[in-house]
Amino acid sequence: MRVLGIDPGTVTMGYGVVESQNDDIALIDYGALSCRERSPIGERLSYLYHELLELIQRHQPDTVAVEQPFVAHNVRSTLAIGRAQATALLAAANEGIPTYEYTPAQIKQMVANYGASSKEQIQEMVRLQLGLAQAPQPDDAADALAVAICHLRQTHLNNLLARQGERE
Amino acid sequence: MRVLGIDPGTVTMGYGVVESQNDDIALIDYGALSCRERSPIGERLSYLYHELLELIQRHQPDTVAVEQPFVAHNVRSTLAIGRAQATALLAAANEGIPTYEYTPAQIKQMVANYGASSKEQIQEMVRLQLGLAQAPQPDDAADALAVAICHLRQTHLNNLLARQGERE
Repeated sequence: MRVLGIDPGTVTMGYGVVESQNDDIALIDYGALSCRERSPIGERLSYLYHELLELIQRHQPDTVAVEQPFVAHNVRSTLAIGRAQATALLAAANEGIPTYEYTPAQIKQMVANYGASSKEQIQEMVRLQLGLAQAPQPDDAADALAVAICHLRQTHLNNLLARQGERE
Repeated sequence: MRVLGIDPGTVTMGYGVVESQNDDIALIDYGALSCRERSPIGERLSYLYHELLELIQRHQPDTVAVEQPFVAHNVRSTLAIGRAQATALLAAANEGIPTYEYTPAQIKQMVANYGASSKEQIQEMVRLQLGLAQAPQPDDAADALAVAICHLRQTHLNNLLARQGERE
């Protein structure tokens, strides 16, 4: 299964593509989309939307996993993240690809087995799980890879539980 | 000039189309898009996006005006409105139509000459300015018409100021 993970932001949007191969996770691609902060919001979202469509068409992910904003942030930043998130959800849904959302706590729990892990711990776990010499840069890309890994682990867990249910 | 006004929401999205004709404002269309509250968010946004594209293609507005959420609302509802707003901005921008955003206070000021008008006062002003027997229903549609009227008045004012500037 191939997953495109997204760390949403309207100025910088991190992305990461991973694929489960037997028990391993292979890194396919990662990076960050940036747009000019001063452009009108409609143009900025449209730029991100088309870049995301291009990524989806290039990598053909089976699912798109998007990080949900931590809702205790201030309202203005929540609004901005909500817009970025909607852009990612729309690009995927308009291409017929199922979308999943994960909260920061769910991502930390799945990637580092601890819901209150620090940002640095998560980036180190991403590095280890993908067998990289250094943590992926920029941070937005590392965060996006964490969302994608979170979705792979959650799916693996769901499959195990379903199989156990069938046996019982 | 023809304006499509949008009152954003991820469950119900109001829309209204008006056109300036000399000193009058003509009503072209209004209504509300509704989607099943239980559908996954990606599907819901994709449904709204395609309905908006269809409205834009049918009415060919020169601009799309969208109401900004009142940022003192709770964070969860701000996130939902941010997503709905992004969907409207994207549908317009992807069709190459310029987008404008107005705060609730700006809309009240422009439509009723008073930034602290009640919802009922705004709906009554929308009814009067469009020469209707009754206020448009549902409320989301009336709110969307208010945004569209706000943009027409703001543009008219900007043109007057620009012409005055040229004379001076």
